[in-house]
Amino acid sequence: MGEMDWRNFEQDSLPPLLRCAVKTFVAHGYHGTSTRTLARAAGLSLPGLYYHFASKHAIIVAIMDLAMDDLWRRSLAAHAEAGDDVVLQLGLHIQCLALFHAHRRELAFLASTELRSLEPEAQARSIAARDRQEYLLIDILRLGATRGAFDVADASQLARALITMCTGISQWFSTAGPLSPGSIANDYVRYAQRLVGLV
Amino acid sequence: MGEMDWRNFEQDSLPPLLRCAVKTFVAHGYHGTSTRTLARAAGLSLPGLYYHFASKHAIIVAIMDLAMDDLWRRSLAAHAEAGDDVVLQLGLHIQCLALFHAHRRELAFLASTELRSLEPEAQARSIAARDRQEYLLIDILRLGATRGAFDVADASQLARALITMCTGISQWFSTAGPLSPGSIANDYVRYAQRLVGLV
Repeated sequence: MGEMDWRNFEQDSLPPLLRCAVKTFVAHGYHGTSTRTLARAAGLSLPGLYYHFASKHAIIVAIMDLAMDDLWRRSLAAHAEAGDDVVLQLGLHIQCLALFHAHRRELAFLASTELRSLEPEAQARSIAARDRQEYLLIDILRLGATRGAFDVADASQLARALITMCTGISQWFSTAGPLSPGSIANDYVRYAQRLVGLV
Repeated sequence: MGEMDWRNFEQDSLPPLLRCAVKTFVAHGYHGTSTRTLARAAGLSLPGLYYHFASKHAIIVAIMDLAMDDLWRRSLAAHAEAGDDVVLQLGLHIQCLALFHAHRRELAFLASTELRSLEPEAQARSIAARDRQEYLLIDILRLGATRGAFDVADASQLARALITMCTGISQWFSTAGPLSPGSIANDYVRYAQRLVGLV
């Protein structure tokens, strides 16, 4: 696989069928979308769709899993790049979250709105993936506090505030707006630094 | 009407029919909910439901309008309580946003996920209500910066970060968890103070 370029979002991580499904789910919601609609959007017959996926549920699950996995691998690569410098660990982690949610708005929207639509096993897996993602940030905050670099009273509380601030980018960011994902990410890194008492 | 007690969320601001509709929409999504389901959830016949509301769309619109109006009136009351002290204006504004999103989780979830489901006119009205809400915070940030109390480079950018951080509370807050809405609100006020360079 080689080194992952976690700042690069040029290539879509989803195969075409799932990319079409994301657009359809975003427009009509999971429950408002039929398997027939998904097939039509992807230019497939219904049997053609079923050749790839057993059900509508299997499609949303595949989308969620790929999205969470993409974010996780990027976060690990950012963490590796930062090495042992905890201020840099925080900075690159936030940069990664901010870039992901600016570049992958539709995926982020689905992940937050359709978690409720997953069947129990898939939902539990998706929640576990979120928790793992959250613990990575909590650990960085705790390490910074232990080393006396950060002033953090409640690391899990602050982690949630930071994460929802970053996921919120997917709600308002527009490629037509004046800000680039890169400049937004830089601003959010500064916000995070202020929140831990740096700067 | 008298003074509004903007910190008090004991009384539900929605009539019973709309409260049932909120629960149903949250569980199945707007497009996944039929008018028949809404009637059944409220213990009404279909004609009984239509006596109150012309359509499913009229119901979601009524919910959205009441939610945005409730938050707006609370925000104005908080602003009035703060008087001319801009640090207090920021503190009470964030306290109000945080309390609202902890106490009104389901409404907040609907407002963020079903904006897409509104017909154009209602959608435009809902977006205008959000913008008005956002401008109130932007104005506080700008006033603080003008007076030299806050260190803020881009007030609209920071307002969005603060607002999504607060709306995010509705995604993770649980009444079964260890934190009360009041203590969360206090923590978020401190976060906001750090983000503007106070504390």
